[in-house]
Amino acid sequence: MERIKPRTLSGFMELLPAKQAQMERFMQKLRETYSLYGFTALDTPAVEAAEVLLAKGGGETEKQIYRFQKGDSDLALRFDLTVPLAKYVALNYGQLSFPFRRYQIGKVYRGERAQRGRFREFYQADIDIIGDGSLSIINEAEIPSVIYRTFRSLGLEHFVIRVNNRKILNGFYAMLGLSARSGDIMRTVDKLDKIGPDKVRALLCDEEIGLADSEAAEIIRFISIGGSNAEVLAALEGYRGKNELFDTGLDELTTVTSYLADFGVPEANFAVDLTIARGLDYYTGTVYETTMTRHPEIGSVCSGGRYDNLAGYYTDKALPGVGISIGLTRLFYVLSEQGLLSDEPVTAPCDALVIPMGNNLGYSIACATKLRECGVRTQLHCEQKKFKAKLAYADKLGVPFAVIIGGDEEAAGVVALKNLLSGEQQLCTPEDAAEIINKETARRNAGAIIKEN
Amino acid sequence: MERIKPRTLSGFMELLPAKQAQMERFMQKLRETYSLYGFTALDTPAVEAAEVLLAKGGGETEKQIYRFQKGDSDLALRFDLTVPLAKYVALNYGQLSFPFRRYQIGKVYRGERAQRGRFREFYQADIDIIGDGSLSIINEAEIPSVIYRTFRSLGLEHFVIRVNNRKILNGFYAMLGLSARSGDIMRTVDKLDKIGPDKVRALLCDEEIGLADSEAAEIIRFISIGGSNAEVLAALEGYRGKNELFDTGLDELTTVTSYLADFGVPEANFAVDLTIARGLDYYTGTVYETTMTRHPEIGSVCSGGRYDNLAGYYTDKALPGVGISIGLTRLFYVLSEQGLLSDEPVTAPCDALVIPMGNNLGYSIACATKLRECGVRTQLHCEQKKFKAKLAYADKLGVPFAVIIGGDEEAAGVVALKNLLSGEQQLCTPEDAAEIINKETARRNAGAIIKEN
Repeated sequence: MERIKPRTLSGFMELLPAKQAQMERFMQKLRETYSLYGFTALDTPAVEAAEVLLAKGGGETEKQIYRFQKGDSDLALRFDLTVPLAKYVALNYGQLSFPFRRYQIGKVYRGERAQRGRFREFYQADIDIIGDGSLSIINEAEIPSVIYRTFRSLGLEHFVIRVNNRKILNGFYAMLGLSARSGDIMRTVDKLDKIGPDKVRALLCDEEIGLADSEAAEIIRFISIGGSNAEVLAALEGYRGKNELFDTGLDELTTVTSYLADFGVPEANFAVDLTIARGLDYYTGTVYETTMTRHPEIGSVCSGGRYDNLAGYYTDKALPGVGISIGLTRLFYVLSEQGLLSDEPVTAPCDALVIPMGNNLGYSIACATKLRECGVRTQLHCEQKKFKAKLAYADKLGVPFAVIIGGDEEAAGVVALKNLLSGEQQLCTPEDAAEIINKETARRNAGAIIKEN
Repeated sequence: MERIKPRTLSGFMELLPAKQAQMERFMQKLRETYSLYGFTALDTPAVEAAEVLLAKGGGETEKQIYRFQKGDSDLALRFDLTVPLAKYVALNYGQLSFPFRRYQIGKVYRGERAQRGRFREFYQADIDIIGDGSLSIINEAEIPSVIYRTFRSLGLEHFVIRVNNRKILNGFYAMLGLSARSGDIMRTVDKLDKIGPDKVRALLCDEEIGLADSEAAEIIRFISIGGSNAEVLAALEGYRGKNELFDTGLDELTTVTSYLADFGVPEANFAVDLTIARGLDYYTGTVYETTMTRHPEIGSVCSGGRYDNLAGYYTDKALPGVGISIGLTRLFYVLSEQGLLSDEPVTAPCDALVIPMGNNLGYSIACATKLRECGVRTQLHCEQKKFKAKLAYADKLGVPFAVIIGGDEEAAGVVALKNLLSGEQQLCTPEDAAEIINKETARRNAGAIIKEN
C-alpha cells in the first residue's frame, strides 16, 4: 500500500491526551461559570455564506478569511463568534427573549502567517448580553463579576480587570477639539505602557498627528491619572460639566464601580484605567481588559466592552449589547508554555485500572462494572501483558489507582486496591474501593487548574 | 447602511436556545458516560491537508468532501472522526500508551444533497480502543456495555444492541464457496428486514448475483436463525468444524455474549443478529447496531465494530481496534421531530430570575451574588420594564423561579421566592431560597433526556 505521511497543519492546535484533559477541564469550568450568570449555550455553524460573514466588510478580515466554493455556493469559515451572533439574533429576533444572554465556545479560523503561538484555528469563549432597543448599565457593571468568578474558578488569584469608558475618552477629546484625530491619538496613547510618556508625547506632536505641545501635555496628564478607583473617579470629577458625553461616561463608570462589592468583586481585582481604549469604532461605553499581575507579558486574557449596534449590517433593529471574549487556545498555549497549568487534577483517562491476575475474568469485569456504577472512571486491562507492564502502563498515563484481582480476591469477594502514588495497598470490597478512589479523585480535581508561581 | 439578509446555510443545524440546552445536556451525558469507561477526550482540527484526509481514497468521500485552497495549501474539512484518529495515532504513536482509548465529539462535513433531516455539518460522537499489534476480545465484549450505559443514561429503556461477527459471515460464505460474491450477497441480505425473505431470495438468484436456488435457500436459512442468544449460538454450533474462520468468529461471539451479565447488560437489551453486516471491507470481527424497539423507523442509532488495521495508509504499524459512532446531530434531530425529547429538565438560561422592585439595586445584586455562590444559575433583570413584563420574560424562557426584592424584603434581609410553575410564593433568606431552588432544579434535571412514548 502506498503510504501518506500523517501530519497536522501548522497553526492548528492538536494536543496529546494529558494536555487535552486539562483543556477539557478548562472549557468545562468556563461553561459552568458562564451558566451561573444565566448565559445560555449557543452553537452556530463553522461554515457560513461568505456574503453573510463579510457583511460588515473590513480589510484584515477579508485577507485572512478561509473562503471557498462548493457547487454554486460561496462559503467561508467564521473568523470570530460575534458576526455569527449578530446573524443569529437578526435571524431569530422574533423567537428570542431580550435581554438575550448567550455564551459560545467554538473554533474560529484566520489564515494568519504561521508563527509560534499564533493559531489559524482557535477557540474563542464569548459571552454577550443583547438588549432590544436599550440595555441597562447594570449589565456593564455585572461583567467584571463574570470575569472575576471565571478566573477565580480556574484558580487564578493575581489578576486585575481594567475598566474604562469610551464616552469618557471621546468626551475628553471633544473637549480639546480633537475628535477628528481621536483615533490616531488613542492608538498612540495605547503604547504608553510599552514606550513611556515621553515617547508618546513625541509621537503625538510629530507630523502625522501634529498636536500642539500643550495639547499633548494635557492628554498625557489625563491618561496618567492613577491611584485607587476612588481617587481616579475623584480626579475625573474635575473635568465634569465641560462635555455632555464625558459626563455620561463618568456617571456610567461611577455606577459600574459602585456595585463592585455587591457583585462580589474585590477592589484589588479591579482598576479604573484610562489607558484602556479597545479599538476604535465598535465599542461605545464600558471597555474591559484583564491582565495577570504576575505575568503582564501575557497581555490581556479577557477583553470586551459595550457596543450600541450588534447587527446593523443585517437589520434595522437597534441591538445594543455588552460582551467579553477569551482567546482560549492562545491563553491555554501560553499558560502551558509558562508552566502555569497545575499537575494536581487527574489527567489520566481513568481513575482506576482493573488488572485481572488469573483465570477470573468474570469477577474482574463485575468489579469494574461495580466501580463504574459508583462513578469511578474505570478501565479494564485484559491484554496479554505481564503484570509489570500493566503497572507501567498505569504509571505512564498517571492513573492514580490499580485494582488488582486474583483468585484469592475473588474467593473473598474483595479487590486489592493499590494507590499508585503512595504505593499503599489494601484489600477491600469494590464498594469501599470506589469510595476511597472517589474521595482522592475529588480532592485532586478540586485543585486549581491555573497554578501561579 | 446597505443590509445583507441574514441566513444560515441549508443542511447546517442551528438551534434555538431551549433546544440547544437539550443538545448540551445530551453531549454532557455522552462525555460523562464515555469517561466512565476510561476513554480520554480528543480534539483534532476540523481542517486538514487534503492529501492526508484522502489518503484512503474512496469514491463517495471524494465527491462529498469540502476541499479548498488557501495560499499554496490544498485543504479539506474532515468528513468523519476515524481518519483524523488514524492520523493522530500514526503521528503520535511513540507518545501514546496502548491500548489507546479515546472519545471524540466533533463536527464533520459532507456536501450531501440538501434534504430534510440530512446535514452537511453534523456532530459525530465516537469512541475507539486501539491496540498496538493486538487487542483482546474483551474489548469487543465491553462495547455493548458502553452502548447500554450511554442510552440508559439518556433515559432510553427500549433498545436492542444487535451484534454479529464478520468472521462468522465470511466463514459461512467460504463454506458455500461464495467468498468472491460475499460482498454482493451481504448487501442483498441486508435488505431482509425491508423486503422480506422471498424478495431477497429472488435477488440472490437474479442475473447479477446468479446463485443457485439451493445456495440462496441455504443463505436464507442461515440468516433467519433466530431466538434467544443461547438458541442462536446453539444453532451456529451446528456449522462448527467446516471453516476455521467461522469457528474463530463463533468463539468470539460466544465470548462477547458470555460476559454480558458481568458487564451489566441485561439480556433484553442485547441480541445476536446474523443479518447485521456493517459495510464490506473495514470491519473484521464483532459488529454492532443499536435500534430503538419502539421506533424501528429511526434505524441504527449507534453502530460500529472491530477492525484490524486503523491506519494502514499512514503507517506500517499494525493497529487493530474496535469502535462505535453515534450520529449525534441526526439522532437529536429525529428525536426532536418525533417529540421524544423530554421537557422535564430545565432548558431556561437560568434557574432564578432576580427582579428588583424599587430603589434597592445594591441589595438585589448582593442577593444574586449569594445565589450564585450557592450554585444557582441566576439572572438579574434590571431593565426598565414593568414587573408584569419581567414575569412574562421568565415565563417565556421557562425560568422556574422568580426572586422578587422590594424595600420590605431588604429591610427584613429576605427575598420573596416565587415558584413560577406552582405559583407558590414565600419569604425566605437568600440561602434558604438557594436550597429550595437547587433541590427543585436537581429533581427536574435528574429526569430522562429521551422520553419514550
